[in-house]
Amino acid sequence: MSLSPIPAIMLEPLVRAALLEDLGRAGDLTSDAIVPNDLRTTTVLSARQQGVVAGLDLAILAFRLIDQNVDIKVDRADGSEIAPGNVIAEVSGPARAILTAERTALNFLCHLSGIATATASIVNAVRGHKAKIVCTRKTTPGLRAVEKYAVRAGGGSNHRFGLDDAILIKDNHIAIAGGIRPAIERARSSVGHLVKIEVEVDTLAQLEEVLALAPDAVLLDNMSVDQLRQAVAMVAGRAITEASGRITASTAPTVAATGVDLLSIGWLTHSAPILDVGLDYREV
Amino acid sequence: MSLSPIPAIMLEPLVRAALLEDLGRAGDLTSDAIVPNDLRTTTVLSARQQGVVAGLDLAILAFRLIDQNVDIKVDRADGSEIAPGNVIAEVSGPARAILTAERTALNFLCHLSGIATATASIVNAVRGHKAKIVCTRKTTPGLRAVEKYAVRAGGGSNHRFGLDDAILIKDNHIAIAGGIRPAIERARSSVGHLVKIEVEVDTLAQLEEVLALAPDAVLLDNMSVDQLRQAVAMVAGRAITEASGRITASTAPTVAATGVDLLSIGWLTHSAPILDVGLDYREV
Amino acid sequence: MSLSPIPAIMLEPLVRAALLEDLGRAGDLTSDAIVPNDLRTTTVLSARQQGVVAGLDLAILAFRLIDQNVDIKVDRADGSEIAPGNVIAEVSGPARAILTAERTALNFLCHLSGIATATASIVNAVRGHKAKIVCTRKTTPGLRAVEKYAVRAGGGSNHRFGLDDAILIKDNHIAIAGGIRPAIERARSSVGHLVKIEVEVDTLAQLEEVLALAPDAVLLDNMSVDQLRQAVAMVAGRAITEASGRITASTAPTVAATGVDLLSIGWLTHSAPILDVGLDYREV
Amino acid sequence: MSLSPIPAIMLEPLVRAALLEDLGRAGDLTSDAIVPNDLRTTTVLSARQQGVVAGLDLAILAFRLIDQNVDIKVDRADGSEIAPGNVIAEVSGPARAILTAERTALNFLCHLSGIATATASIVNAVRGHKAKIVCTRKTTPGLRAVEKYAVRAGGGSNHRFGLDDAILIKDNHIAIAGGIRPAIERARSSVGHLVKIEVEVDTLAQLEEVLALAPDAVLLDNMSVDQLRQAVAMVAGRAITEASGRITASTAPTVAATGVDLLSIGWLTHSAPILDVGLDYREV
Amino acid sequence: MSLSPIPAIMLEPLVRAALLEDLGRAGDLTSDAIVPNDLRTTTVLSARQQGVVAGLDLAILAFRLIDQNVDIKVDRADGSEIAPGNVIAEVSGPARAILTAERTALNFLCHLSGIATATASIVNAVRGHKAKIVCTRKTTPGLRAVEKYAVRAGGGSNHRFGLDDAILIKDNHIAIAGGIRPAIERARSSVGHLVKIEVEVDTLAQLEEVLALAPDAVLLDNMSVDQLRQAVAMVAGRAITEASGRITASTAPTVAATGVDLLSIGWLTHSAPILDVGLDYREV
Amino acid sequence: MSLSPIPAIMLEPLVRAALLEDLGRAGDLTSDAIVPNDLRTTTVLSARQQGVVAGLDLAILAFRLIDQNVDIKVDRADGSEIAPGNVIAEVSGPARAILTAERTALNFLCHLSGIATATASIVNAVRGHKAKIVCTRKTTPGLRAVEKYAVRAGGGSNHRFGLDDAILIKDNHIAIAGGIRPAIERARSSVGHLVKIEVEVDTLAQLEEVLALAPDAVLLDNMSVDQLRQAVAMVAGRAITEASGRITASTAPTVAATGVDLLSIGWLTHSAPILDVGLDYREV
Repeated sequence: MSLSPIPAIMLEPLVRAALLEDLGRAGDLTSDAIVPNDLRTTTVLSARQQGVVAGLDLAILAFRLIDQNVDIKVDRADGSEIAPGNVIAEVSGPARAILTAERTALNFLCHLSGIATATASIVNAVRGHKAKIVCTRKTTPGLRAVEKYAVRAGGGSNHRFGLDDAILIKDNHIAIAGGIRPAIERARSSVGHLVKIEVEVDTLAQLEEVLALAPDAVLLDNMSVDQLRQAVAMVAGRAITEASGRITASTAPTVAATGVDLLSIGWLTHSAPILDVGLDYREV
Repeated sequence: MSLSPIPAIMLEPLVRAALLEDLGRAGDLTSDAIVPNDLRTTTVLSARQQGVVAGLDLAILAFRLIDQNVDIKVDRADGSEIAPGNVIAEVSGPARAILTAERTALNFLCHLSGIATATASIVNAVRGHKAKIVCTRKTTPGLRAVEKYAVRAGGGSNHRFGLDDAILIKDNHIAIAGGIRPAIERARSSVGHLVKIEVEVDTLAQLEEVLALAPDAVLLDNMSVDQLRQAVAMVAGRAITEASGRITASTAPTVAATGVDLLSIGWLTHSAPILDVGLDYREV
Repeated sequence: MSLSPIPAIMLEPLVRAALLEDLGRAGDLTSDAIVPNDLRTTTVLSARQQGVVAGLDLAILAFRLIDQNVDIKVDRADGSEIAPGNVIAEVSGPARAILTAERTALNFLCHLSGIATATASIVNAVRGHKAKIVCTRKTTPGLRAVEKYAVRAGGGSNHRFGLDDAILIKDNHIAIAGGIRPAIERARSSVGHLVKIEVEVDTLAQLEEVLALAPDAVLLDNMSVDQLRQAVAMVAGRAITEASGRITASTAPTVAATGVDLLSIGWLTHSAPILDVGLDYREV
Repeated sequence: MSLSPIPAIMLEPLVRAALLEDLGRAGDLTSDAIVPNDLRTTTVLSARQQGVVAGLDLAILAFRLIDQNVDIKVDRADGSEIAPGNVIAEVSGPARAILTAERTALNFLCHLSGIATATASIVNAVRGHKAKIVCTRKTTPGLRAVEKYAVRAGGGSNHRFGLDDAILIKDNHIAIAGGIRPAIERARSSVGHLVKIEVEVDTLAQLEEVLALAPDAVLLDNMSVDQLRQAVAMVAGRAITEASGRITASTAPTVAATGVDLLSIGWLTHSAPILDVGLDYREV
Repeated sequence: MSLSPIPAIMLEPLVRAALLEDLGRAGDLTSDAIVPNDLRTTTVLSARQQGVVAGLDLAILAFRLIDQNVDIKVDRADGSEIAPGNVIAEVSGPARAILTAERTALNFLCHLSGIATATASIVNAVRGHKAKIVCTRKTTPGLRAVEKYAVRAGGGSNHRFGLDDAILIKDNHIAIAGGIRPAIERARSSVGHLVKIEVEVDTLAQLEEVLALAPDAVLLDNMSVDQLRQAVAMVAGRAITEASGRITASTAPTVAATGVDLLSIGWLTHSAPILDVGLDYREV
Repeated sequence: MSLSPIPAIMLEPLVRAALLEDLGRAGDLTSDAIVPNDLRTTTVLSARQQGVVAGLDLAILAFRLIDQNVDIKVDRADGSEIAPGNVIAEVSGPARAILTAERTALNFLCHLSGIATATASIVNAVRGHKAKIVCTRKTTPGLRAVEKYAVRAGGGSNHRFGLDDAILIKDNHIAIAGGIRPAIERARSSVGHLVKIEVEVDTLAQLEEVLALAPDAVLLDNMSVDQLRQAVAMVAGRAITEASGRITASTAPTVAATGVDLLSIGWLTHSAPILDVGLDYREV
């Protein structure tokens, strides 16, 4: 299964906004003052750390929206593993445009590669188990589509993209509805036939009650490894099982070993550090 | 000196976009199905970790753009230190609106409080030294203004906001110009009288050459502590001195002790983990 | 189950755009010339035809975005059945604003009430059968969220809102994949755990092949009533069954009687005529 | 007189918005999962019904904004009559892009061709009479410019495009002004020299009063055929005469035979059913 | 005839954009640093020159979009004549907001009042003649609607608002069409019944040819006063006559005395100097 | 020092908005009716007055956003001096597109060339003095970036681009702060190290007080030539000196002769008349 690119029509508004945020009203004062308009240069985007690439299409757009004469040759596409010193892409063209777009291109590329790298670290940690790694709605405002893409680039899978593409019944919904049954019934009666229903449970007692109502998935929140193992046994394949709650690369294998289908991890999108990628000038 | 709020006219487009990103085309399927339209509730935003608050105005906007009948009482304003369990604000009003806006509000608040907290950790680490902590242009695309605000909330100070509010001459500019002198001269002759000029130097030899040209500031990049100390002595107050290069809370005091004016730290905005803040339902 | 309103934050951009489209550059030349600025009036939105109301929130926004001093009292909310002469809402306030916003308000209200009315006509036709009525992605560009809401107001249910909230494998996808099995397998391996998979089939032979792969739903396209009945028997509850293909109010009962779960009808959103609603001036 | 295309700068925002509405946050899940990135295909847009084409430029933009490598060869341009099976255009290029853009392209093309077809049916019905067919401001919100274009494609002519390009004095304006004379006088004194004035009348008595004030046009609303004939005689060429009120293809010839200059018909834009056009895959 | 205000929905996007243009990414550095958040003040917008006010609604929006607690009491509404020292409006509220919005408010108010003042100077110069003063499409990009409003505030009238609300056939169109007759005939056959047709002529011979084709208006471009007088005689009321070509306050009376209906003057919108209005602080 | 172009990504939104403002909903009625779709023509942008060109990139975008087949050959680039009759650029391509875009292209070009020309007139007047000519924030709403560019094209320099790229302490700030010292101290303590501080003074006494606090620049507002000369002597190079207050081409040399560093002139951007440029058709 290969990684599908996001259509440029979805990326372009993000990149335009980011470039304009950096250009402000007066543009790149430094490069405009110093770099001759007709100077061309060749640079490379190269990894400073080990990790997984994501966000190249955004970086490419950043350069090309400043000047469509910038050419980019990709060596390691999104989803590739990279080691320090590896060339990700060669960027050549007008030097002023490359300098002007550099920070915006890198801000996208480093941020998304950071998410892909974090995801891959967990994916690798649970290799051998069936569990998939999924992200949450704890994303950076404005960047949900691309951050979820970065999770896929790192080998992860996606949970809901928003409030509107699946039902996720949490404790507060249950409390308001006055119980698990009315909550699920109201949900089931109101949504379309292609909407799945997942229910969050904190205890095995709740899980039992929920299972009787045949949800598509259950979110086992902050359960111990023992509880998770029992939960998986109770579910016995009747619903998708998702474990959540401060899972890290070191705890992930143990959690995965419980047999759950999914490990959902908020920090992949809200707290992953960047992957350090730089733009090196081969000649100017 | 108090922290000035960002005018709502600058924040509102960000919050609208974030809410619409989460609502998608069909809105909050779960709350719409389960939560009665007229139910009111009272909730509190409370800290799960120790840190510094930033982003409350964005969180407040998130709730109120969904329903202007949501009331928010702020207990600990932006810039306040908080400990686990501390109430940051009370949020009361229509339960459905609060549930719908919750994640967007928290995504802003946790992300920006994370930046403020990271900044404060460094600010505290260098207390007693004159050095200020500044952030860079390595920000999340679309969020520069609010991330730089979060740095101020954490006690830090701001570097350039973009390519257009100051000159920062880096090694590539110098290489292209054919030397430090022509680079600085071109910059000086082309920009307005309220634009400052900072020059990046990697060696003390470069620093000497730069100082002769009277820049407003020098960026001492990746220098050792020894080099920084010598650089400060060479500069002797003739320019603002900025140290940069992978500074952490543990190395910051030593760097600050060299007498530099500024420590600039990219990871404050590109890699600070969130500060965990939750929305607790007092009653539903 | 009641009809949940769409948050105003999702409606406002549509109404603003529609008002500006009508105001052009010079505004309401006629009312500005003739109607005194301080004249107030009371009007009623009243039905000229029998049907179901939908779109009142958009109509209300149209008036109030022109002048927030316009007051609206709703007599028959969205989802209500109305007969000719019934008052839907009373609209009172500055006469000029009401005249200026009138056409935009009515364009939304008549269009969406037309969809709700068409939907209700089919819903009523199949009453007594379990079948739900669903709309498709054949919507008017720009209006998908509100047209799907109008279907709900008419008692219908919603199919996919877009290309991204469910998998729907059609004949072309199957042809490209080289068969039903590879198509479904590729789909299943690539999407998240909350995404359902529906497969379109044209023949019972295809249906048999599809059922072995356990899709969430099957779209029985352009089948005869006999075929539908056999299909329902073959599926035997293992998947949701959806019948499609030029279903009208007169054919719907027969189709529903086959036992299918869903009747999907494109013309509800692409070809339903408006419901005629007028704005009558009680006094000027 | 040929049909002038609408400049792409006016169409592009509509098509972008429609594509993004369909792509949502996650894009075309089905095609991304199933269709290889490098597969090319050739398809044809072909008529399923008899009618008149309109909206090809929007359909073309839909394909090309997803992927500019899609090529379109137009066989029957906007304004052409088509019969079932006729090829309108050939669309070839990346299969994934064509599948992704298909529904958006068809939604525009079918909707606008439906309007053109409805218009042509009336235009043909009154052939031999001098009457032109015009549409109204009862258009779908957001689509006025393109719907009015579709009316032209069907051989019709355009009434006002908005509140600001002509004066149309209706009964409410007259009531507010306290009579026809003050209404017309206020209008005439306030607008520019290139703005025409039309007045709506319901009776021949009103018409007489209006004619004394030399309007550019009179809207004869809901008059009987007898009244219309008398009205035309009374006007005697001193003003343009427009008949309105639930005119259909069957009543249009009789109305046209009264000698009025214009038949204005709201349903052309608010209630015309789509023209069924499909995208057929020649090979995949 | 009074001056109708432009609906706020049309003004708000202009004012938001202007405020954001001035606030940039970091907001009002000076006021944020110096002005206490809770300080209130009272200021007055007062005239420094004699002229006519226009643009108050934009100025008011500027203050209130920064802080809705700013109160404005208008003393001299748009269209009023003002003398140096006259108070136009009192602006009171949070001092920081008033300082922040001041320049944006004044930029609108001074620019539009400058246009109104220039217009009034010509209107006054031709008083006693029937000629109206009209502006052209030579407006500042983005500000056409408000600049044309300012012309009305100064007592002028409006020509076309754009390319789409009237036909204006110029020399190039005639050359392309191969003569005046085909140009007018093509125009007449292609546009709706509420679109007027004006034709530009440079000579009396052309005028004669044009008059035979019954245009609504003729634009007498760069004719001498003698020619204008003859042209008016030739037209004899059969069309509206418009004189254009570098008309100033000193030449206007002579031109108006020829009996033309309109004097059109491009510099009213493209070259009128501002009217100097200041914001004076009564107390801080 | 050459004039750097503004990146197209910053210009395009301005030009799109201006074109759409002129096209309205129905486009160019006149050209669409009269000009054959396939006719090509060659035209020239030529000067009608002596001056300095600015805004060619915007004019070029206007033509090319209507039709990318329009070709433009530039003879006299931005910043060039032109005399009446000089060809600025040759514009060739589809005649209809050129006619449609003509007014928008000229509105940008004439307005910005007017500013460049006004600036150049002052720059030339002070030639031989060291003083630079700078513009202010008194710009046309929405056009600040391009108007400041036009000042550079005329040989001028730029003051602040907004409220956020430098501190400018005015009399009201000083009054609010309770004195010059607290105002400057608050400013200095709150802003970043790359933000300069300028202080406005009206008297030499104020200047003395300010100089003790080492501002980067002093704005000498409305001082007499004598006062300016004394002020320059007092400053003695310790700060940049800026003179402001109704400076014209005739008074500029005297002001410059006082030795001030800068003459700031608001009317360059708010009241400069256009430079008359026309589009001449060589053949149609």
